[in-house]
Amino acid sequence: MSSDIGLIGLGTMGSALALNIAEKGFGIAVYNRTAEVTRDFHSEAGELASRVTPTETLEDFVAALAKPRAIILMVPAGEIVDAQIAALRPLLGPDDLIIDAGNANFHDTNRRMREATGPFLGIGVSGGEEGARHGPSIMGGGDRAHWDRVAHILEAISAKYEGTPCATWMGEEGAGHFVKAVHNGIEYADMQMIAEVYGVLRDGMGYDAPAVGTVFDRWNDGALKSYLIEISGMVAGTTDPATGGPLLDVIVDAAGQKGTGRWTVIEAQHLAAPVPAIEAAVVARNLSSRRETRAQGEAVFGAAPTPMPPGTLDEDTLEQALICGKILCYAQGFTMIAAASEAFGWALPLPEIARVWREGCIIRSEMLNDMADALTDDPARNLMFAPYFADHLKAGHTALRQVVAQAALHGIAAPALASGLAYFDAMRTARGTANMIQGQRDYFGLHGFARLDDDSTDQHGPWAD
Amino acid sequence: MSSDIGLIGLGTMGSALALNIAEKGFGIAVYNRTAEVTRDFHSEAGELASRVTPTETLEDFVAALAKPRAIILMVPAGEIVDAQIAALRPLLGPDDLIIDAGNANFHDTNRRMREATGPFLGIGVSGGEEGARHGPSIMGGGDRAHWDRVAHILEAISAKYEGTPCATWMGEEGAGHFVKAVHNGIEYADMQMIAEVYGVLRDGMGYDAPAVGTVFDRWNDGALKSYLIEISGMVAGTTDPATGGPLLDVIVDAAGQKGTGRWTVIEAQHLAAPVPAIEAAVVARNLSSRRETRAQGEAVFGAAPTPMPPGTLDEDTLEQALICGKILCYAQGFTMIAAASEAFGWALPLPEIARVWREGCIIRSEMLNDMADALTDDPARNLMFAPYFADHLKAGHTALRQVVAQAALHGIAAPALASGLAYFDAMRTARGTANMIQGQRDYFGLHGFARLDDDSTDQHGPWAD
Repeated sequence: MSSDIGLIGLGTMGSALALNIAEKGFGIAVYNRTAEVTRDFHSEAGELASRVTPTETLEDFVAALAKPRAIILMVPAGEIVDAQIAALRPLLGPDDLIIDAGNANFHDTNRRMREATGPFLGIGVSGGEEGARHGPSIMGGGDRAHWDRVAHILEAISAKYEGTPCATWMGEEGAGHFVKAVHNGIEYADMQMIAEVYGVLRDGMGYDAPAVGTVFDRWNDGALKSYLIEISGMVAGTTDPATGGPLLDVIVDAAGQKGTGRWTVIEAQHLAAPVPAIEAAVVARNLSSRRETRAQGEAVFGAAPTPMPPGTLDEDTLEQALICGKILCYAQGFTMIAAASEAFGWALPLPEIARVWREGCIIRSEMLNDMADALTDDPARNLMFAPYFADHLKAGHTALRQVVAQAALHGIAAPALASGLAYFDAMRTARGTANMIQGQRDYFGLHGFARLDDDSTDQHGPWAD
Repeated sequence: MSSDIGLIGLGTMGSALALNIAEKGFGIAVYNRTAEVTRDFHSEAGELASRVTPTETLEDFVAALAKPRAIILMVPAGEIVDAQIAALRPLLGPDDLIIDAGNANFHDTNRRMREATGPFLGIGVSGGEEGARHGPSIMGGGDRAHWDRVAHILEAISAKYEGTPCATWMGEEGAGHFVKAVHNGIEYADMQMIAEVYGVLRDGMGYDAPAVGTVFDRWNDGALKSYLIEISGMVAGTTDPATGGPLLDVIVDAAGQKGTGRWTVIEAQHLAAPVPAIEAAVVARNLSSRRETRAQGEAVFGAAPTPMPPGTLDEDTLEQALICGKILCYAQGFTMIAAASEAFGWALPLPEIARVWREGCIIRSEMLNDMADALTDDPARNLMFAPYFADHLKAGHTALRQVVAQAALHGIAAPALASGLAYFDAMRTARGTANMIQGQRDYFGLHGFARLDDDSTDQHGPWAD
């Protein structure tokens, strides 16, 4: 019997996704460049093996699929995707659909969509291996009619939030991969803010790793309830089998990155849509990898200034600060999505984006449900002005100030939280300080300025020489 | 008699540069798309008119030049440059040199260099109209032999620092325009930090504009001595002829930008070379332009929290903080240049870059002379570790902490100073907090981590499910 769908690329994510598809009752043909991987996958599929058709040539793979065919690519992003499409397309009929479910740069997806000689979709899949296996968040891009052909499968395998599938068509072209990129940028900032709070707890307040874990566990019952807070609690609470001490304490403090956070920042700059919290997080990961320089820095400048006197900060203040930081980070992310929607003519569905992020993906959280509500109410409004979030910010910005100030005084780097506060203060200051910059620019470059007291623009100062 | 050099484009910058060239004794032929502009320029050239040959067709322009010809383009960056080259090249001999002195993106200069069918240079010219007229800072890129042909003219018209010309060949291809871009990025950050200190003086300490001007004037006698501090003092001290009050107070607080700061940030992300102070400055300009949103923010969240009690900060603390912020900003900029030098194979001369920035350009300052010395001593070392600057940071980081903390507590956005401090603290903390991020990444994505207590990498946690 012909398979409902095919999948190429049985790495960690591809294998998990294939099993997920089979588990939901669909027949799936699979192919991997190395045939042994395909055989091992099939033999380890257990009771799902009967719905899996392993194939060892692309021709056999294509022949195993029901027409019109639908084929998911889960291969490394970049040239391999182009090569795979080039190898596959000649074997396909004009209605056969190729779906790139890898981690593509959305500019590549835009290009592949333009170059495609047959139906093509680019979908962002988030949730790591666990998500791919049991329910990821899926962000689709391309022709809506192509999405509709496979939506029943993608919705079936996706995560569910109170029964609603976390799989949605986002728009034309690379819209799905774009939304996934912003997701990853937000993920960077969310993780960085958690790491900064960890730093305050550890270096400012003297908490050991298990105590940090207990704090995160408790916060996971409140407004911060989220996958990232949950696993941060678990990470902090895990004992190292080798030493019997906290595992967190023996992990090297150099963060890796695969570049998706950087893509987001670059695109935000092109869009002139500020995402300073994400920028701070990308920079922080980069600096973390410079361990030798940091050790040299500590040798030259000494360790952090005096520890915080007891009572300087408490856990509730930190919790309020992190809530505010998180809101401001997501406000930036959604503002960037709105800017892209306009720039690219995509009509991205902001409330739907918040909805598909509620389950399955790495940044899933309760707060995203409130964001979905706020964006449904008014998709054009910066989230920081939505009543629910404005109330949180009103209640918490003093706490965020305390944390940023004390981190600054005590030598604990908190760039993402600090950038969140600076964003908040810039956005709530009617009279800023850019008049000085405009004065300077007119002085040295005759760039001109506008006046507050009339509607004139392009005025110049009577600068003394 | 044939002219020594030609110049196309008699806008503000082109006119100033042409007069500068004539004043230094060179004969110059000029051409502008609109002939009337050329005639006006010549008739207003005064005693320099005898060295200026106005031309009204490209053919006459080319014929007026001594061979092998050298022609400066000073036209708007972008397609106009390509169009001008395309129109000009067929009229030239194989040894004739075209010099793009406009504000090109260095990627365009790289491309033009590749596509060029004859000698081509890209030079960055900084200093605004005043600099162009009386001595700019000039950063050259392209074939060294082509630079050498015109170096005597470019050095003659450039600014001089204690007699040394501020005009240097930086490297192949678009190296000159790249160095100019980083210059502009640093300019953004330097200006932003000054604006932030102005904000603390105005909103935190209650200084009126003339009092702010007096502070900047005084600082211009110390370590901060620089063109930007000088003009900031002048801007703050200028009286508005219309109102009789401070002009600064009626200038709209929405900063314009021409995109060069953004280019720098995007390139820094591509290079993975962190420039958080420049990123903060670009974001701050962007947010400044959202005046309606900021007014809405003030309506929703109220004006800044309680003013600073007298004595919270003093002028000396602010001066020390600004010195530290400036050092950290330039450290980031030079680190980015070093990264580009390696990535592009350019062997950029870091000490020479500091030297040509000492006079003529917008960021000219005394401190750049100390930076030139430090980079001569060890071009590979981050400036923050050079003894002279390390001493400043040791003496001043406490002041920077105070300013960042008090700005945070009192609602004054200081993103560039805060990012500078976070950079400093990240770079002087041997044991950071990215171990939490690595734990999270391994938890959700099996990305693996390294251990501190052995040389193993790609370890995984025994994460509970």
